[in-house]
Amino acid sequence: MESIERVRVLARSESGQAEREEALAVEEPLEIRIRPEGASKASSFVTTMRTPGHDEELAAGLLFAEGVLAAPADLLALERPSDPRIDPELRSNVLVATVARAAFSRSEKLRRGTVMGSACGVCGKTSIEAVIPAGQPPLLSLLRVRPEVLLALPARLRQEQSVFSQTGGLHAAALFGPEGAASRVREDIGRHNAVDKLVGAGLRNGELPLSGSLLMVSGRAGFEIVQKAYAARIPIVASVSAPSSLAVELADAAGLTLIGFLREQRYNVYSHPERILSA
Amino acid sequence: MESIERVRVLARSESGQAEREEALAVEEPLEIRIRPEGASKASSFVTTMRTPGHDEELAAGLLFAEGVLAAPADLLALERPSDPRIDPELRSNVLVATVARAAFSRSEKLRRGTVMGSACGVCGKTSIEAVIPAGQPPLLSLLRVRPEVLLALPARLRQEQSVFSQTGGLHAAALFGPEGAASRVREDIGRHNAVDKLVGAGLRNGELPLSGSLLMVSGRAGFEIVQKAYAARIPIVASVSAPSSLAVELADAAGLTLIGFLREQRYNVYSHPERILSA
Repeated sequence: MESIERVRVLARSESGQAEREEALAVEEPLEIRIRPEGASKASSFVTTMRTPGHDEELAAGLLFAEGVLAAPADLLALERPSDPRIDPELRSNVLVATVARAAFSRSEKLRRGTVMGSACGVCGKTSIEAVIPAGQPPLLSLLRVRPEVLLALPARLRQEQSVFSQTGGLHAAALFGPEGAASRVREDIGRHNAVDKLVGAGLRNGELPLSGSLLMVSGRAGFEIVQKAYAARIPIVASVSAPSSLAVELADAAGLTLIGFLREQRYNVYSHPERILSA
Repeated sequence: MESIERVRVLARSESGQAEREEALAVEEPLEIRIRPEGASKASSFVTTMRTPGHDEELAAGLLFAEGVLAAPADLLALERPSDPRIDPELRSNVLVATVARAAFSRSEKLRRGTVMGSACGVCGKTSIEAVIPAGQPPLLSLLRVRPEVLLALPARLRQEQSVFSQTGGLHAAALFGPEGAASRVREDIGRHNAVDKLVGAGLRNGELPLSGSLLMVSGRAGFEIVQKAYAARIPIVASVSAPSSLAVELADAAGLTLIGFLREQRYNVYSHPERILSA
């Protein structure tokens, strides 16, 4: 499936009205099913709206961010459903993850937690505690970055993006090295998905933890973006736009450097500025 | 709770580095619990990240969009949890909805559907069918709008927004009448939540269906925005930015007029242009 679809639109401007062709970001659901090793039956874990492409990375990254996969070895296979009676369109929107028994137990616990729990698992202070269990030390990384490297990232992100994503049609997320070299970029209609795809690629390639990398996202940075970065041990997260209050609180508690409004030769640092070298 | 929080940041620009105060959008989880009438025990239905404010509207709108509430009479009460042992901060992030027995059964079915279903309920073609059951006629509304009214909406939306939302700090969604008069505006860090708050206010005020109203959202229009508009029978949806492929498909099938890129004296019509009068 493509990530862009062309449609006919009726375009109205000051010069009048005309029919023309326009590109749209493709949005389709992806259902992730989980099966413990040795079993034949898979059960549905989650369905997420996404832009098709890098689906295996998205599934791996999402299962890692949710805590189902604790290590690459927990993921034994990622396949399309094999039942031949399934409609081909549906098949391309489903992935079956075969996981180790311990990972399957965690997924069952998570499902019960989301659905049956009568206490709010992520409310107020507890949202931070849910991500950083008591006693767990904050993120440690020796990664340091010079201000010039940060200021150069927006232009580098644009270079790596597709033309469509540059126009704002899709969100982009990219990993950079300490000197600002791009190592990977992913795009999706959902910012969270673009980050899951990046981390999922790292997991599948044996690159975790990503403690030497810097993550940049094209839009805002909310709680979940910081949560996903922390799970992959990414020490510096930069976004083109604003962070949320809870994203800043989590970054602060997690020992993660959070940078916002990185554009037009400026940026704000919201937490842990010690990773940014003085000029 | 406030929708804006002030934090100290380290701001770097071409003129150097300085500490200053900055406003951030507040992001906090809201857990919605459901209790059937007559019962004392409530169970958790969903937790969503949101900007505090108009929580009751958000909960009512979300339960309506999900199909738990079929009519205003299904919602008997919306209250904070009464257990005095609950931490005050947690209390402000939880709402308990007391609903009619039929609505409670629907919520239980939905929970089982999301979690236990082994078929993808919203994949590919079935995502459209899940929203528009077979045999249900598309949306009918006599609402018609002049192009001049549409072109004036971005400026009117800005007038109705808070200063912080105008700067892009929060998403805004607003309902307008056929001549472009704003009837209600809601803001949230999540676009979906802003729409749920609008529809939830309509539900609580006995204003549904909203067949005489036009919805405008500040960002993109994805599948779920169109789904929520269709549930409230809003016949025209306009967004400042792009729609997704699935949003266009759903709008087309639902009989809903979808307008995108409504800004700077232009717009595109993606479906059902017959509701826009010729100039």
